[in-house]
Amino acid sequence: MASAVRILGIDPGLTRCGVGVVDVRADRSATLVHVGVVRSGADLPIAERLALIARGLREVFAAHHPDVVAVERVFAQQNRSTVMGTAQASGIALLLAAEHGLPAATHTPSEVKAAITGYGSADKLQVQTMVARVLRLDALPQPADAADALAIALCHGWRRGAPSGSAAAGALTPAQRAWADAEKRATRR
Amino acid sequence: MASAVRILGIDPGLTRCGVGVVDVRADRSATLVHVGVVRSGADLPIAERLALIARGLREVFAAHHPDVVAVERVFAQQNRSTVMGTAQASGIALLLAAEHGLPAATHTPSEVKAAITGYGSADKLQVQTMVARVLRLDALPQPADAADALAIALCHGWRRGAPSGSAAAGALTPAQRAWADAEKRATRR
Repeated sequence: MASAVRILGIDPGLTRCGVGVVDVRADRSATLVHVGVVRSGADLPIAERLALIARGLREVFAAHHPDVVAVERVFAQQNRSTVMGTAQASGIALLLAAEHGLPAATHTPSEVKAAITGYGSADKLQVQTMVARVLRLDALPQPADAADALAIALCHGWRRGAPSGSAAAGALTPAQRAWADAEKRATRR
Repeated sequence: MASAVRILGIDPGLTRCGVGVVDVRADRSATLVHVGVVRSGADLPIAERLALIARGLREVFAAHHPDVVAVERVFAQQNRSTVMGTAQASGIALLLAAEHGLPAATHTPSEVKAAITGYGSADKLQVQTMVARVLRLDALPQPADAADALAIALCHGWRRGAPSGSAAAGALTPAQRAWADAEKRATRR
Protein backbone atom coordinates (compact mmCIF):
# COMPACT_ATOMS: atom_id res chain seq x y z
CA MET A 1 0.00 0.00 0.00
CA ALA A 2 1.35 3.43 -0.91
CA SER A 3 2.20 5.74 1.97
CA ALA A 4 -0.72 7.91 2.97
CA VAL A 5 -1.12 11.34 4.46
CA ARG A 6 -3.47 11.43 7.42
CA ILE A 7 -5.65 14.51 7.30
CA LEU A 8 -7.89 15.87 10.05
CA GLY A 9 -10.72 17.90 8.55
CA ILE A 10 -12.65 20.23 10.83
CA ASP A 11 -16.00 21.87 10.12
CA PRO A 12 -15.92 24.46 12.89
CA GLY A 13 -18.96 25.15 15.01
CA LEU A 14 -19.94 25.70 18.63
CA THR A 15 -23.04 23.52 18.83
CA ARG A 16 -21.64 20.87 16.49
CA CYS A 17 -18.02 20.85 15.36
CA GLY A 18 -17.53 18.19 12.69
CA VAL A 19 -14.31 16.18 12.70
CA GLY A 20 -13.22 13.74 10.01
CA VAL A 21 -9.93 11.90 9.66
CA VAL A 22 -8.96 10.29 6.36
CA ASP A 23 -5.84 8.72 4.91
CA VAL A 24 -5.23 9.97 1.37
CA ARG A 25 -2.65 8.24 -0.84
CA ALA A 26 -0.68 9.64 -3.73
CA ASP A 27 -3.06 7.96 -6.17
CA ARG A 28 -5.89 10.03 -4.59
CA SER A 29 -7.56 7.00 -3.06
CA ALA A 30 -8.76 7.61 0.47
CA THR A 31 -9.74 5.64 3.57
CA LEU A 32 -11.96 6.65 6.46
CA VAL A 33 -10.12 6.69 9.81
CA HIS A 34 -12.57 8.51 12.07
CA VAL A 35 -15.65 10.66 11.82
CA GLY A 36 -17.58 12.38 14.55
CA VAL A 37 -18.95 15.54 16.03
CA VAL A 38 -17.76 17.51 19.06
CA ARG A 39 -20.70 19.21 20.75
CA SER A 40 -21.22 21.93 23.34
CA GLY A 41 -24.50 22.94 24.92
CA ALA A 42 -25.98 26.28 23.90
CA ASP A 43 -26.88 26.91 27.56
CA LEU A 44 -23.22 27.05 28.64
CA PRO A 45 -21.12 30.23 28.81
CA ILE A 46 -19.16 30.83 25.62
CA ALA A 47 -15.77 30.20 27.29
CA GLU A 48 -16.97 26.81 28.59
CA ARG A 49 -18.27 25.91 25.15
CA LEU A 50 -14.93 26.73 23.53
CA ALA A 51 -13.13 24.68 26.20
CA LEU A 52 -15.39 21.69 25.44
CA ILE A 53 -14.67 22.04 21.72
CA ALA A 54 -10.93 22.25 22.45
CA ARG A 55 -11.07 19.17 24.68
CA GLY A 56 -12.95 17.15 22.07
CA LEU A 57 -10.54 18.19 19.32
CA ARG A 58 -7.52 17.36 21.48
CA GLU A 59 -8.92 13.85 21.94
CA VAL A 60 -9.07 13.44 18.16
CA PHE A 61 -5.47 14.69 17.77
CA ALA A 62 -4.33 12.26 20.47
CA ALA A 63 -6.26 9.27 19.17
CA HIS A 64 -5.53 9.59 15.45
CA HIS A 65 -2.23 11.51 15.09
CA PRO A 66 -3.00 13.49 11.95
CA ASP A 67 -0.16 14.77 9.73
CA VAL A 68 -2.01 17.88 8.69
CA VAL A 69 -5.16 19.80 9.62
CA ALA A 70 -7.69 21.39 7.26
CA VAL A 71 -10.34 23.77 8.57
CA GLU A 72 -13.30 25.22 6.73
CA ARG A 73 -12.88 28.94 6.30
CA VAL A 74 -15.53 31.15 7.85
CA PHE A 75 -16.81 34.34 6.28
CA ALA A 76 -18.43 37.32 7.92
CA GLN A 77 -21.15 37.26 5.28
CA GLN A 78 -22.50 33.92 6.50
CA ASN A 79 -25.45 33.48 8.86
CA ARG A 80 -24.95 36.30 11.33
CA SER A 81 -26.41 34.72 14.45
CA THR A 82 -23.81 31.96 14.59
CA VAL A 83 -20.88 33.20 12.52
CA MET A 84 -18.94 34.65 15.46
CA GLY A 85 -19.12 31.38 17.38
CA THR A 86 -18.09 29.51 14.26
CA ALA A 87 -15.13 31.84 13.79
CA GLN A 88 -14.12 31.37 17.43
CA ALA A 89 -14.30 27.58 17.07
CA SER A 90 -12.20 27.78 13.89
CA GLY A 91 -9.63 29.79 15.83
CA ILE A 92 -9.46 27.03 18.43
CA ALA A 93 -9.01 24.39 15.70
CA LEU A 94 -6.17 26.34 14.06
CA LEU A 95 -4.50 27.04 17.41
CA LEU A 96 -4.53 23.35 18.31
CA ALA A 97 -2.97 22.46 14.94
CA ALA A 98 -0.15 24.93 15.58
CA GLU A 99 0.31 23.70 19.15
CA HIS A 100 0.61 20.14 17.86
CA GLY A 101 3.28 21.32 15.43
CA LEU A 102 1.11 20.46 12.44
CA PRO A 103 0.59 22.44 9.24
CA ALA A 104 -2.91 23.85 8.98
CA ALA A 105 -4.82 25.04 5.96
CA THR A 106 -8.19 26.62 5.42
CA HIS A 107 -10.50 25.98 2.48
CA THR A 108 -13.62 27.87 1.55
CA PRO A 109 -16.95 26.02 1.32
CA SER A 110 -16.88 26.54 -2.46
CA GLU A 111 -13.40 25.06 -2.74
CA VAL A 112 -14.50 22.03 -0.76
CA LYS A 113 -17.68 21.51 -2.78
CA ALA A 114 -15.80 21.95 -6.06
CA ALA A 115 -13.08 19.50 -5.00
CA ILE A 116 -15.59 16.86 -3.90
CA THR A 117 -18.42 17.20 -6.42
CA GLY A 118 -16.90 19.31 -9.16
CA TYR A 119 -19.45 22.01 -8.49
CA GLY A 120 -18.82 24.91 -6.11
CA SER A 121 -22.52 25.35 -5.37
CA ALA A 122 -23.29 21.68 -4.74
CA ASP A 123 -25.89 20.97 -2.08
CA LYS A 124 -25.26 19.02 1.13
CA LEU A 125 -26.68 15.78 -0.27
CA GLN A 126 -24.38 15.85 -3.30
CA VAL A 127 -21.36 16.38 -1.05
CA GLN A 128 -22.42 13.60 1.35
CA THR A 129 -23.09 11.19 -1.51
CA MET A 130 -19.70 11.83 -3.06
CA VAL A 131 -17.88 11.55 0.27
CA ALA A 132 -19.59 8.20 0.93
CA ARG A 133 -18.66 6.98 -2.56
CA VAL A 134 -15.00 8.03 -2.35
CA LEU A 135 -14.60 6.47 1.11
CA ARG A 136 -16.65 3.37 0.15
CA LEU A 137 -19.10 3.89 3.02
CA ASP A 138 -22.34 1.93 3.17
CA ALA A 139 -24.32 4.91 4.38
CA LEU A 140 -24.15 8.68 4.03
CA PRO A 141 -22.09 10.23 6.83
CA GLN A 142 -24.35 11.80 9.47
CA PRO A 143 -24.83 14.47 10.68
CA ALA A 144 -24.02 16.90 7.88
CA ASP A 145 -21.26 18.52 9.96
CA ALA A 146 -19.43 15.18 10.12
CA ALA A 147 -19.77 14.70 6.36
CA ASP A 148 -18.55 18.25 5.80
CA ALA A 149 -15.48 17.55 7.92
CA LEU A 150 -14.67 14.50 5.79
CA ALA A 151 -15.19 16.59 2.65
CA ILE A 152 -12.76 19.23 3.95
CA ALA A 153 -10.16 16.56 4.67
CA LEU A 154 -10.57 14.98 1.24
CA CYS A 155 -10.45 18.40 -0.43
CA HIS A 156 -7.18 19.15 1.29
CA GLY A 157 -5.68 15.78 0.46
CA TRP A 158 -6.56 16.09 -3.18
CA ARG A 159 -5.55 19.72 -3.57
CA ARG A 160 -2.21 19.39 -1.82
CA GLY A 161 -1.18 16.21 -3.61
CA ALA A 162 -2.66 17.14 -6.94
CA PRO A 163 -0.28 16.05 -9.69
CA SER A 164 -0.38 18.49 -12.60
CA GLY A 165 -2.32 16.39 -15.07
CA SER A 166 0.13 13.54 -14.70
CA ALA A 167 -2.34 10.71 -14.08
CA ALA A 168 -2.65 8.32 -17.01
CA ALA A 169 -6.28 8.34 -18.10
CA GLY A 170 -6.39 4.58 -18.34
CA ALA A 171 -5.17 3.95 -14.79
CA LEU A 172 -7.59 5.99 -12.73
CA THR A 173 -9.02 4.76 -9.47
CA PRO A 174 -12.70 5.48 -8.85
CA ALA A 175 -11.70 8.45 -6.72
CA GLN A 176 -9.35 9.74 -9.41
CA ARG A 177 -12.04 9.30 -12.02
CA ALA A 178 -14.51 11.22 -9.89
CA TRP A 179 -11.92 13.92 -9.39
CA ALA A 180 -11.06 14.13 -13.08
CA ASP A 181 -14.75 14.33 -13.97
CA ALA A 182 -15.24 17.00 -11.37
CA GLU A 183 -12.35 19.01 -12.75
CA LYS A 184 -13.74 18.74 -16.24
CA ARG A 185 -17.15 19.90 -15.09
CA ALA A 186 -15.61 22.77 -13.17
CA THR A 187 -13.58 23.83 -16.21
CA ARG A 188 -16.67 23.94 -18.37
CA ARG A 189 -18.38 26.51 -16.19
CA MET B 1 -6.60 48.72 51.76
CA ALA B 2 -9.86 47.05 50.75
CA SER B 3 -9.59 43.71 48.98
CA ALA B 4 -9.42 44.06 45.21
CA VAL B 5 -10.51 41.97 42.29
CA ARG B 6 -7.79 41.54 39.67
CA ILE B 7 -9.28 41.78 36.19
CA LEU B 8 -7.58 40.92 32.91
CA GLY B 9 -9.14 42.90 30.08
CA ILE B 10 -8.48 41.74 26.53
CA ASP B 11 -9.10 43.70 23.34
CA PRO B 12 -8.88 40.82 20.88
CA GLY B 13 -6.95 41.15 17.64
CA LEU B 14 -4.48 39.24 15.49
CA THR B 15 -2.04 42.02 14.66
CA ARG B 16 -2.37 43.68 18.05
CA CYS B 17 -4.18 42.05 20.95
CA GLY B 18 -4.46 44.53 23.82
CA VAL B 19 -4.07 43.25 27.38
CA GLY B 20 -4.69 45.25 30.54
CA VAL B 21 -4.67 44.09 34.15
CA VAL B 22 -6.22 46.24 36.87
CA ASP B 23 -7.11 45.79 40.50
CA VAL B 24 -10.56 47.18 41.22
CA ARG B 25 -11.75 47.67 44.79
CA ALA B 26 -15.28 47.71 46.13
CA ASP B 27 -15.18 51.53 46.28
CA ARG B 28 -14.60 51.54 42.50
CA SER B 29 -11.03 52.78 42.83
CA ALA B 30 -8.63 51.00 40.53
CA THR B 31 -4.90 50.43 40.15
CA LEU B 32 -2.89 49.60 37.07
CA VAL B 33 -1.09 46.24 37.29
CA HIS B 34 -0.01 45.65 33.71
CA VAL B 35 -0.71 46.94 30.26
CA GLY B 36 0.64 45.73 26.95
CA VAL B 37 0.01 44.38 23.50
CA VAL B 38 0.52 40.87 22.14
CA ARG B 39 1.44 41.01 18.47
CA SER B 40 1.64 38.60 15.56
CA GLY B 41 3.03 39.30 12.11
CA ALA B 42 0.56 39.57 9.25
CA ASP B 43 2.97 37.54 7.09
CA LEU B 44 2.60 34.41 9.25
CA PRO B 45 0.05 31.65 8.64
CA ILE B 46 -3.15 32.16 10.61
CA ALA B 47 -2.53 29.15 12.87
CA GLU B 48 0.93 30.47 13.82
CA ARG B 49 -0.54 33.89 14.53
CA LEU B 50 -3.15 32.43 16.85
CA ALA B 51 -0.46 30.38 18.60
CA LEU B 52 1.60 33.55 19.17
CA ILE B 53 -1.44 35.31 20.60
CA ALA B 54 -2.14 32.33 22.87
CA ARG B 55 1.48 32.25 24.06
CA GLY B 56 1.48 35.97 24.83
CA LEU B 57 -1.82 35.74 26.70
CA ARG B 58 -0.64 32.72 28.69
CA GLU B 59 2.39 34.77 29.82
CA VAL B 60 0.04 37.45 31.14
CA PHE B 61 -2.07 34.87 32.98
CA ALA B 62 1.08 33.36 34.51
CA ALA B 63 2.67 36.66 35.48
CA HIS B 64 -0.36 38.44 36.92
CA HIS B 65 -2.82 35.76 38.12
CA PRO B 66 -6.10 37.50 37.29
CA ASP B 67 -9.29 36.56 39.16
CA VAL B 68 -11.54 37.15 36.16
CA VAL B 69 -11.21 37.82 32.44
CA ALA B 70 -13.19 40.33 30.37
CA VAL B 71 -13.06 40.25 26.57
CA GLU B 72 -14.45 42.78 24.13
CA ARG B 73 -17.30 41.28 22.18
CA VAL B 74 -16.88 41.10 18.42
CA PHE B 75 -19.70 41.66 15.97
CA ALA B 76 -20.01 40.45 12.39
CA GLN B 77 -21.04 43.95 11.35
CA GLN B 78 -17.62 45.39 12.18
CA ASN B 79 -14.82 45.95 9.65
CA ARG B 80 -15.07 42.91 7.43
CA SER B 81 -11.44 42.48 6.45
CA THR B 82 -10.28 41.82 10.00
CA VAL B 83 -13.39 40.75 11.90
CA MET B 84 -12.84 37.01 11.43
CA GLY B 85 -9.30 37.20 12.81
CA THR B 86 -10.57 39.31 15.69
CA ALA B 87 -13.26 36.72 16.42
CA GLN B 88 -10.69 33.93 16.32
CA ALA B 89 -8.43 35.82 18.72
CA SER B 90 -11.39 36.40 21.04
CA GLY B 91 -12.07 32.67 20.97
CA ILE B 92 -8.49 32.02 22.07
CA ALA B 93 -8.83 34.54 24.90
CA LEU B 94 -12.07 32.96 26.16
CA LEU B 95 -10.64 29.44 25.86
CA LEU B 96 -7.60 30.39 27.94
CA ALA B 97 -9.82 31.89 30.62
CA ALA B 98 -11.80 28.64 30.84
CA GLU B 99 -8.63 26.56 30.83
CA HIS B 100 -7.31 28.62 33.74
CA GLY B 101 -10.55 27.97 35.61
CA LEU B 102 -11.46 31.66 35.56
CA PRO B 103 -14.84 33.24 34.90
CA ALA B 104 -14.95 35.12 31.61
CA ALA B 105 -17.29 37.84 30.45
CA THR B 106 -17.74 39.73 27.23
CA HIS B 107 -18.71 43.37 26.93
CA THR B 108 -19.71 45.24 23.82
CA PRO B 109 -17.72 48.31 22.74
CA SER B 110 -20.72 50.49 23.64
CA GLU B 111 -20.95 49.00 27.11
CA VAL B 112 -17.26 49.67 27.65
CA LYS B 113 -17.44 53.24 26.40
CA ALA B 114 -20.57 53.94 28.45
CA ALA B 115 -19.00 52.48 31.60
CA ILE B 116 -15.79 54.46 31.19
CA THR B 117 -16.94 57.80 29.78
CA GLY B 118 -20.68 57.70 30.42
CA TYR B 119 -21.27 57.89 26.69
CA GLY B 120 -21.66 54.77 24.50
CA SER B 121 -20.39 56.54 21.39
CA ALA B 122 -17.33 58.11 22.98
CA ASP B 123 -14.26 58.35 20.77
CA LYS B 124 -10.92 56.67 21.45
CA LEU B 125 -9.37 59.81 22.96
CA GLN B 126 -12.20 60.23 25.46
CA VAL B 127 -11.82 56.61 26.54
CA GLN B 128 -8.03 56.88 26.82
CA THR B 129 -8.26 60.13 28.77
CA MET B 130 -10.73 58.66 31.23
CA VAL B 131 -8.72 55.45 31.66
CA ALA B 132 -5.60 57.50 32.40
CA ARG B 133 -7.48 59.63 34.91
CA VAL B 134 -9.08 56.70 36.74
CA LEU B 135 -5.76 54.85 36.96
CA ARG B 136 -3.84 58.05 37.80
CA LEU B 137 -1.45 57.59 34.86
CA ASP B 138 0.88 60.38 33.79
CA ALA B 139 0.33 59.69 30.11
CA LEU B 140 -2.43 58.29 27.92
CA PRO B 141 -2.07 54.51 27.52
CA GLN B 142 -0.61 53.65 24.10
CA PRO B 143 -1.37 52.08 21.67
CA ALA B 144 -5.16 52.38 21.58
CA ASP B 145 -5.53 48.57 21.84
CA ALA B 146 -3.78 48.65 25.21
CA ALA B 147 -5.99 51.48 26.43
CA ASP B 148 -9.06 49.60 25.20
CA ALA B 149 -7.99 46.53 27.15
CA LEU B 150 -7.72 48.60 30.33
CA ALA B 151 -11.13 50.13 29.58
CA ILE B 152 -12.65 46.64 29.21
CA ALA B 153 -11.13 45.55 32.51
CA LEU B 154 -12.39 48.68 34.30
CA CYS B 155 -15.83 48.30 32.70
CA HIS B 156 -16.05 44.76 33.99
CA GLY B 157 -14.87 45.70 37.47
CA TRP B 158 -17.36 48.50 37.76
CA ARG B 159 -20.30 46.65 36.28
CA ARG B 160 -19.81 43.52 38.33
CA GLY B 161 -19.24 45.27 41.61
CA ALA B 162 -21.58 48.18 40.99
CA PRO B 163 -23.32 49.12 44.22
CA SER B 164 -26.82 50.43 43.52
CA GLY B 165 -26.28 54.10 44.25
CA SER B 166 -24.96 53.35 47.71
CA ALA B 167 -21.90 55.61 47.67
CA ALA B 168 -22.25 58.61 49.94
CA ALA B 169 -21.85 61.72 47.80
CA GLY B 170 -19.48 63.35 50.27
CA ALA B 171 -17.02 60.42 50.35
CA LEU B 172 -16.11 59.95 46.73
CA THR B 173 -12.64 58.83 45.68
CA PRO B 174 -11.13 60.56 42.63
CA ALA B 175 -12.21 57.58 40.50
CA GLN B 176 -15.73 57.68 41.87
CA ARG B 177 -15.88 61.43 41.29
CA ALA B 178 -14.69 60.97 37.69
CA TRP B 179 -17.31 58.28 37.26
CA ALA B 180 -20.08 60.38 38.75
CA ASP B 181 -19.08 63.36 36.57
CA ALA B 182 -19.09 61.12 33.51
CA GLU B 183 -22.51 59.84 34.38
CA LYS B 184 -23.79 63.39 34.80
CA ARG B 185 -22.35 64.41 31.43
CA ALA B 186 -23.95 61.38 29.80
CA THR B 187 -27.32 62.25 31.31
CA ARG B 188 -27.14 65.76 29.90
CA ARG B 189 -26.72 64.54 26.29
